[in-house]
Amino acid sequence: MKLKHLAGLSLLAPSVAFAAEKPNIVFFIVDDMGWVDSSVAYGEQVYPNNLHFHTPNMQRLASQGVMLTNAYACPVSTPTRTSLITGVNAAHSRITNWTSTMRDTPSDATGGAVAMAQTGVNTDISGAFERPEWNLNGMSPEEGVENTLYATPLPKLLKGAGYYTIHVGKAHWASAGTPGASPYNMGYLVNVAGTIAGMPRSYQSEDNYGNTPQLWNHLAVQNMTEYYGTGIHLTEALTREALKTLDFPIKQDIPFYLYFAHYATHTPIQRDNRFIQRYLDMGLDEGQARYASMVEGVDKSLGDLLDYLEAKGVADDTIIIFMTDNGGNAENKAKGGVRFMHNLPLRNGKGSVYEGGIRVPLMVKWSGKVAPDTRVNTPVICEDLFPTILGMAGIKSADVVQEVDGKSLVNLVTKGSQLAAKAARKGEIANQREANAFVVPKSVSGIDPERALVFHYPHQWKPYDLVDIDYLSAVRKGDWKLVYRMRTGALELYNLKEDIGEQNNVAAQNPAKVKELAAELSTRLREWNSPMPKLRATGKNIPLPDQL
Amino acid sequence: MKLKHLAGLSLLAPSVAFAAEKPNIVFFIVDDMGWVDSSVAYGEQVYPNNLHFHTPNMQRLASQGVMLTNAYACPVSTPTRTSLITGVNAAHSRITNWTSTMRDTPSDATGGAVAMAQTGVNTDISGAFERPEWNLNGMSPEEGVENTLYATPLPKLLKGAGYYTIHVGKAHWASAGTPGASPYNMGYLVNVAGTIAGMPRSYQSEDNYGNTPQLWNHLAVQNMTEYYGTGIHLTEALTREALKTLDFPIKQDIPFYLYFAHYATHTPIQRDNRFIQRYLDMGLDEGQARYASMVEGVDKSLGDLLDYLEAKGVADDTIIIFMTDNGGNAENKAKGGVRFMHNLPLRNGKGSVYEGGIRVPLMVKWSGKVAPDTRVNTPVICEDLFPTILGMAGIKSADVVQEVDGKSLVNLVTKGSQLAAKAARKGEIANQREANAFVVPKSVSGIDPERALVFHYPHQWKPYDLVDIDYLSAVRKGDWKLVYRMRTGALELYNLKEDIGEQNNVAAQNPAKVKELAAELSTRLREWNSPMPKLRATGKNIPLPDQL
Repeated sequence: MKLKHLAGLSLLAPSVAFAAEKPNIVFFIVDDMGWVDSSVAYGEQVYPNNLHFHTPNMQRLASQGVMLTNAYACPVSTPTRTSLITGVNAAHSRITNWTSTMRDTPSDATGGAVAMAQTGVNTDISGAFERPEWNLNGMSPEEGVENTLYATPLPKLLKGAGYYTIHVGKAHWASAGTPGASPYNMGYLVNVAGTIAGMPRSYQSEDNYGNTPQLWNHLAVQNMTEYYGTGIHLTEALTREALKTLDFPIKQDIPFYLYFAHYATHTPIQRDNRFIQRYLDMGLDEGQARYASMVEGVDKSLGDLLDYLEAKGVADDTIIIFMTDNGGNAENKAKGGVRFMHNLPLRNGKGSVYEGGIRVPLMVKWSGKVAPDTRVNTPVICEDLFPTILGMAGIKSADVVQEVDGKSLVNLVTKGSQLAAKAARKGEIANQREANAFVVPKSVSGIDPERALVFHYPHQWKPYDLVDIDYLSAVRKGDWKLVYRMRTGALELYNLKEDIGEQNNVAAQNPAKVKELAAELSTRLREWNSPMPKLRATGKNIPLPDQL
Repeated sequence: MKLKHLAGLSLLAPSVAFAAEKPNIVFFIVDDMGWVDSSVAYGEQVYPNNLHFHTPNMQRLASQGVMLTNAYACPVSTPTRTSLITGVNAAHSRITNWTSTMRDTPSDATGGAVAMAQTGVNTDISGAFERPEWNLNGMSPEEGVENTLYATPLPKLLKGAGYYTIHVGKAHWASAGTPGASPYNMGYLVNVAGTIAGMPRSYQSEDNYGNTPQLWNHLAVQNMTEYYGTGIHLTEALTREALKTLDFPIKQDIPFYLYFAHYATHTPIQRDNRFIQRYLDMGLDEGQARYASMVEGVDKSLGDLLDYLEAKGVADDTIIIFMTDNGGNAENKAKGGVRFMHNLPLRNGKGSVYEGGIRVPLMVKWSGKVAPDTRVNTPVICEDLFPTILGMAGIKSADVVQEVDGKSLVNLVTKGSQLAAKAARKGEIANQREANAFVVPKSVSGIDPERALVFHYPHQWKPYDLVDIDYLSAVRKGDWKLVYRMRTGALELYNLKEDIGEQNNVAAQNPAKVKELAAELSTRLREWNSPMPKLRATGKNIPLPDQL
């Protein structure tokens, strides 16, 4: 597939008749659900945290598809979502943090008047740094909107190719008062509940999902009036809405693209009454149990979707992509347990470029193409999904205004999974640990297992210091990962194969590798003109890793 | 067309492929805009009120289509909208008043806890009456929802017949917590801004259309985040949204049904800055000028729609139905002018069964079928639009669960308008006055000009008495109209041909006609088990007109 950068040209979607031979595609994305936040074990073993969760439908999906065990997203929501919809790395799109509901309002804490006003805390605690200039209004499908990335969104291309494009749930690509605020401008034909909100004001129908005089703010969930006061949890309500939208394209035999973006399991951490008792009985504390009940709610939703597709006879014609938008939130006290331990063995969580913040669940089911119950371990990143989904849809070329960084994973998930299945049949893979070490060569997948993946968070997340989250940048290449601590200028090196928990900084022992990765990261950030914090004293950007 | 009452059967929409030969249909409905609230003269002459308005696009539509000069709606919003979507008369559906946003919450003032809480006024001022039992949760497309009419909605049938069904604007068929709250449950594939709200909290983008901490309530307009703070009036924003939705079906050559329901010109009466100066310059007071600017905003919207359809080359394939949902609001002080004079020569306004409350603009453009620039004067009523639109869509039979009261107007607007055009060519119609007296025989239209049309408002509208609005019922038959004043038991008779202003009660001179119409009205109300106020003293319904 050849993607062209046509700067300055307006994109006209080609007029293409419905093509019934195209596979349906469901992108099922969960919010803030970490890598170990399910009973699906993406790791070399089942970790203790996996045992807190009961997610039979995620297991069902894993048994039907391929699991990508080294899949990455950005540390926070919007950058992942804009990378998915544009194919551009967050450091390149300059959308490196989440978008505020209101336009031109920085969400990063330092210099963030909003955060200060909301918390009453002086947010200027980083002292030395001013916040970077970044595309704080998010992504725009129209040109000329200040502080946005102008890009051609994925659903517009799918719609142009004859897909019936559906948005259900959380959008969060852009701030109010800009075109990116509306899924309809992104190429979606149907929208339920997609707005500027990055989280729901409430999951509870008793709260009208935040639409009460006491609770209302811009996070109140829209399009949900039929469920007010009905006792139906938001996750269930969105599921019913999603299934409703599929009725028409299935009856009319139109291929559909359903982007089903659950608000769960983002804060507020509120119990799903259908499932909580199991977790209380397990001895989890109230916060842990609430969170686990929310995860099971999402699992039920996935199961209902799979059941529906089977009942309608289209399960085999429908690709399912399951993913989450960043690592589990390990910082929020409402989740119970011990702070920053939620993602073990991974270090830290949401907001951080350590593995706990960026390594995410990713599974793909594709009947006849993806070998079931397999694992593929090549590192992949959220922007890869843009060309991947175009490839799945059979779109050979597309005119887009942005430079796409992602690589199609189609061969990786199809031929790669088939290779893994073959190896398992031949006895070359005996267990999960070996499966996680199995390499799909680039000659088969088209994806270099040694390509560099960049993560960049030049922000302060909260109006208080979080040293393993704020102002971090990282690059992963093969087994190696370099972390750049912008506050101190320190460069850390980890070997993820031996040390998935990033506990042993081996920079001192591997100066050449540090230099190589620092150059790699710097080259990207320089080329992309990525946002960097400024030194308050000088008003200038802080140094790149190769300038230290 | 044969409509069957299939009680107890669930309706399965037939699987029909897209049928490109079907005409597109746009139902353009305006809120609270009265019969004389435009420069289009539906009457025998141009009335002084017509001169307050500048609506060139409504005139353009009139020149391209047929004007139905004796068209009726219900006195308030929801009953009209539920009659349109079900084909059932409001006295029959038992949805005789507007639905509150919240479930099980009477909107009628007497006994209306909400109104009392909102106003601090003791609403029990009618003294003798208790509010009737009615379907105060509105219409439901699902069975078994308390206090609703269970019915098969029009868009569901259109969707089943291959139409791409689009809802933009005000819905207001049902209260929160019931299926009728969502356009998606009514058979719409696309929804923008349709909720439980019967009016917008604000038309102004500076107010985020009501989505601010100061303003928010359940009337805040949803799905509009992209326009917050942009200076774009709600009427314009909805227009842009509506046109966006048409792009896809036009490109894919799928017939579309666009139900484009403006929130304007309902209260709040807020200026449309694009147009207000004209009206201030005319010497209208601030309230009148604001209102007229809102009407011109709607006119601009209509023009933009017509332009768009022409530019896309589908104007001749697209039927336009233009209507309003009830008479102009003559009671609201914010509209300026003199209260209850806004609809002159018609008596009273919104809420009332006098002509000012129920006679509404109605025009139909249908290239090649409807003779342009014509008038048809046969009395018609909102529930007629249900079978009419099915007929326009070529749907010969439909399984619906409700008993449909409306009659198809297809022959009236096609053959009837052609007959009127022929008469004009032959010189039988020389002017507007004669055109308004021209009769289309039943043999041509299928509609008996003498059929009885029933209007029923057994409610108190406001938390204060309005004697020409509260507790009135009426029947029109030919030139005659009987009004039943429930409070006093008085029966009034008017000859609309001679007395369009209902100023001369000729009941005493025509006892036989009074008796005939009283029997007609009573028969309907009895047969339909229509809601009636109860006498507080006895707890029993007040008498029907033939029991007086």
